[in-house]
Amino acid sequence: MLVVGELINASRKAVAAAIEAQDEKKIKQLAIDQVAAGADFIDVNAGVFVGREADYLQWLVQTVQEGVDAPCCIDSPDPAAIEKALAVHKGVALLNSISLEKERFEALLSLVAGTDLKVVSLCMSDEGIPETSEERVRIADRLINGLVKNNVAIDNIYVDPLVQPISTSSSFGAEFLDAVEKIMTGFPGVHTICGLSNISFGLPLRGHLNRNFAVMAIARGLDSLILDPLDKRMMANIIAAETLAGKDRYCMNYLKAFRANKLEI
Amino acid sequence: MLVVGELINASRKAVAAAIEAQDEKKIKQLAIDQVAAGADFIDVNAGVFVGREADYLQWLVQTVQEGVDAPCCIDSPDPAAIEKALAVHKGVALLNSISLEKERFEALLSLVAGTDLKVVSLCMSDEGIPETSEERVRIADRLINGLVKNNVAIDNIYVDPLVQPISTSSSFGAEFLDAVEKIMTGFPGVHTICGLSNISFGLPLRGHLNRNFAVMAIARGLDSLILDPLDKRMMANIIAAETLAGKDRYCMNYLKAFRANKLEI
Repeated sequence: MLVVGELINASRKAVAAAIEAQDEKKIKQLAIDQVAAGADFIDVNAGVFVGREADYLQWLVQTVQEGVDAPCCIDSPDPAAIEKALAVHKGVALLNSISLEKERFEALLSLVAGTDLKVVSLCMSDEGIPETSEERVRIADRLINGLVKNNVAIDNIYVDPLVQPISTSSSFGAEFLDAVEKIMTGFPGVHTICGLSNISFGLPLRGHLNRNFAVMAIARGLDSLILDPLDKRMMANIIAAETLAGKDRYCMNYLKAFRANKLEI
Repeated sequence: MLVVGELINASRKAVAAAIEAQDEKKIKQLAIDQVAAGADFIDVNAGVFVGREADYLQWLVQTVQEGVDAPCCIDSPDPAAIEKALAVHKGVALLNSISLEKERFEALLSLVAGTDLKVVSLCMSDEGIPETSEERVRIADRLINGLVKNNVAIDNIYVDPLVQPISTSSSFGAEFLDAVEKIMTGFPGVHTICGLSNISFGLPLRGHLNRNFAVMAIARGLDSLILDPLDKRMMANIIAAETLAGKDRYCMNYLKAFRANKLEI
């Protein structure tokens, strides 16, 4: 499981304040805590700062990588901001995200074509977000083919089928899960990724739904998640689900997590 | 989700003692508690009492059904014991279980053929328990066809693909889950059922693994479970998983469980 820690996002008030105050200590600590809890990539997002996004994104990348030895997930649709962030980034970044929307596709493609960058690829087109698994797979097919023929390795593509709220339609969970399975079996080597919290929009005890949905998605093949790694119950569920899905030889990771007291919560 | 409450099983010492003492109050309370917690069927098992199983099983059925208005899951491979239990049973019982082992198949078939009894059908033959999903599906195919051509409705067949310990082979979880999906999609109308605890044999924090495996199996189509309904975390997971799997229109069941404080644990 590839875990992207989502906490350094300027849509969170405390993070926006830390960015404006250029509070290196606070941002570094958020990065350190997430890596300690199991994050492989640290998401950085400064999208709320219109006109200053590029400068702030670059500062976030520098600050995070002074604190931790981990790559960033550069969370912006703006090619100029991404370029400025990449200029100082160490290691292989994950771009978040390209989509099949014509303008966005072309702008992001010019950044990733022929590189070894990893890229989140949203199942979304100019027609909007698809509702069925079939439509998602059709968009995924066009995204994957468009990227691969521009020399992006399939192993660097992280398809996000896009979670929609189960409170809106009781089929939205199943459509997402079916899409994960179809994409993982239909395009060997590709990855699937998502954020979870949309699934529980409008319902009580959202964490309970999000945690169980993560386990269900892993059961269908999902191999990457954008989440809060400080949610111990979520991380304990993911560790168990990976073991149960056959991705943990001799249950070594499960036993290691047990000994480190990461499972008993 | 059809839930079979597993607690009235003579392999548990306290239950064996209650059966020997003919402690009606204790058995009734165990039935009442399980139904209150969400059990649809109450499993009754007196298998440890060689020579007295039939009498005890009949007593268990009578005692349980004096306490609750629910059918029993009659848990015995012995046709004579099952017949004695069925003679006093009210409503439609679930027999636990037939298998493809020749002797057991013939004995149990004579009890269920042409009836409206429900029957757990173990994916096991005289060659033992299969290891791969393909072997499980082959046995399920022969079981389902053997039952259907003897006038057992497909809707009354509950195939148990048989859970094996993930500590023995890291593929055992995936093979089981694949079998669930193949059986549910390959034989429309049939049900799948299992006990969960074998999955965690030999590992620490077994409940954590069992609960997550239940959610994963629901994600692949499992619609019935044999479990301890007094495990509140397990029941909360199952309720969320069913909602997320699209089996809870307008999230009514989830919201009802939330209001009844069944989810916050």
